[in-house]
Amino acid sequence: MTEDLVDRLRLVRSPGIGPVTYRQLIARFGSPAAALEAVPDLAARGGGKAPRLFSAGDAEREVARIEALGGRYLLLGQGLYPRALAELDDAPPVLTAKGDLRMLEKPLVAIVGARNASAAACRFARQLAYDLGQQGAVVVSGLARGIDSAAHDGSIETGTVGVIAGGLDVFYPPENEPRQTAIAERGLVIAEMPPGTEPRARHFPYRNRIIAGLSLGTVVVEAAPRSGSLITARLAAEAGREVMAVPGSPLDPRAQGCNQLIRDGATLIQNAADVLEAARPIQPTLASPRSHYSASEPEWLDGDADALDVVEELLGPSPVPVDEIIRLSGVPSGAVQMALLELDLAGRLDRHAGGKVSLRPA
Amino acid sequence: MTEDLVDRLRLVRSPGIGPVTYRQLIARFGSPAAALEAVPDLAARGGGKAPRLFSAGDAEREVARIEALGGRYLLLGQGLYPRALAELDDAPPVLTAKGDLRMLEKPLVAIVGARNASAAACRFARQLAYDLGQQGAVVVSGLARGIDSAAHDGSIETGTVGVIAGGLDVFYPPENEPRQTAIAERGLVIAEMPPGTEPRARHFPYRNRIIAGLSLGTVVVEAAPRSGSLITARLAAEAGREVMAVPGSPLDPRAQGCNQLIRDGATLIQNAADVLEAARPIQPTLASPRSHYSASEPEWLDGDADALDVVEELLGPSPVPVDEIIRLSGVPSGAVQMALLELDLAGRLDRHAGGKVSLRPA
Repeated sequence: MTEDLVDRLRLVRSPGIGPVTYRQLIARFGSPAAALEAVPDLAARGGGKAPRLFSAGDAEREVARIEALGGRYLLLGQGLYPRALAELDDAPPVLTAKGDLRMLEKPLVAIVGARNASAAACRFARQLAYDLGQQGAVVVSGLARGIDSAAHDGSIETGTVGVIAGGLDVFYPPENEPRQTAIAERGLVIAEMPPGTEPRARHFPYRNRIIAGLSLGTVVVEAAPRSGSLITARLAAEAGREVMAVPGSPLDPRAQGCNQLIRDGATLIQNAADVLEAARPIQPTLASPRSHYSASEPEWLDGDADALDVVEELLGPSPVPVDEIIRLSGVPSGAVQMALLELDLAGRLDRHAGGKVSLRPA
Repeated sequence: MTEDLVDRLRLVRSPGIGPVTYRQLIARFGSPAAALEAVPDLAARGGGKAPRLFSAGDAEREVARIEALGGRYLLLGQGLYPRALAELDDAPPVLTAKGDLRMLEKPLVAIVGARNASAAACRFARQLAYDLGQQGAVVVSGLARGIDSAAHDGSIETGTVGVIAGGLDVFYPPENEPRQTAIAERGLVIAEMPPGTEPRARHFPYRNRIIAGLSLGTVVVEAAPRSGSLITARLAAEAGREVMAVPGSPLDPRAQGCNQLIRDGATLIQNAADVLEAARPIQPTLASPRSHYSASEPEWLDGDADALDVVEELLGPSPVPVDEIIRLSGVPSGAVQMALLELDLAGRLDRHAGGKVSLRPA
């Protein structure tokens, strides 16, 4: 057990330190240990109480639990961490995984869809997963009922990755325990939440960004309007991945979500060949080496009380892009980022999709 | 009965004078009468026998027949001829029509599809036609079994145009006689072929170009791969009109044609609102006045024996673009066009889609 892992867990498991904040702390302070040390001061400067940090003892107990489960940690910025996932702005700093990590070295394609999908759609998803497996792809899904389960079943022989919303030792839905166990033995199960976590509604969008972020592209098979599968599709699009959807008759209400995705620009998919044709072109980009912290990170400037005042003045309850704050403030971007980090750690900032921030109502 | 109509029919009904040749003859000689007079000489220069021209008597008998049927002629370049159709390079020089010509002044949308479509797809087509009618559109289709019939039935109250492959007095398929009669009374029936013509396989693609050419856009509802409906869709795309298709499950073989169209760029359609959204933007262009003979017509040059030799040398049995002939020949485009017209009237040229020509095998 390395010091670094414990320190990293202490940061990641602390309330109020999300993936974006984590990334900025590391970018600024270089290591989890240095970041941990800086957090109380930063929070004080931001005008709030420091977050109650996860204790070293709790972190050590978690690591022991993962080891007892036969699991592994995947750490952002280190060897086995999936490169495509690291591209996300909010890439999970820590993942737990159980199974065959070689799965992550193959071309990954996500198949997701409705829990209450039609029998025909489940059969389609299973066959699609099987055919993709025969072509050398590994299928990623969310271990939910319906389409997800069918996708895993179709690819269990050739390679499948199940990303779950709860902890590595929690089975949800309960009837999927044998399926999750089989995937941990023959494929790979991945969880962002610590062991013991029962999945709640808010965990599923986080799980979905991992599914989308791991994969070259995401295929949606039968999805209701405003469903979680469409969130996964949106996240895939935002990450620059291929969004694919299986059409259906306009007379079938369960086809509405996918048809709308296609109208919005998703590639219409009829079979595995269509998927491979669509997903292949972006592979080289993802395969090219890239530093986990891009060159566009600002040069961090030490805390500046004036900058903090200016930035706070510009913030309100409505999310605004950080770029706009930088432009309006006339303050160097490094100083703006530092001010935001301070407000964030003080529990006074909310971070939103698309790099927007708002001041949290008192 | 005008002289001009008789002369025009004599040209159009003569074997070997298709719509493109007709258009070029008029562009060169100004009137049907002058063109009729020039044809024998042109054919002789092209090295062939002059086509046997349709006689004035036959033309007069046809006009009498159309009048007896209660029909009308629509002449390219004259008042009532549909402007959108006139945009086609191979616009029919003469149409016969029976019914309410005011149909042609409304926004026209084509709905086409399989003759052996599923009951659900026919119901969908009928409802779509009904909804489009409620929104003020007139529905164009081909009076075939299946989707076409359903589209006409859904729009009979609000406005429907049936384009048939045979003559105005021929009912095909026979069971559609009451439907065709009803459309002639309440909507509009259009035919390019002379009265008495029984439709043959080769007539249907000509019929399809009229459906596509009349309409702002074409919606395909259930079509097998390589079916006539897909030809209509291609013709609509070539004419710069909106191509729309209704998706279906990949498990349904009858959905393959439409799904492929969507993959190729057609707009996915789920309801009338989707159609109106897609078809509306191009309306202003079609509504704008435009000369029937565009400014890009070449300046015609009198016959030039050398040009004819050069052009003939460049031609072979494989279709080549006229533009390429002009470029390779080094001869002014007007002279090339004249040479091609001469070869055409001599029965020695075949004209193909996309402005390509080939020498007809002897």
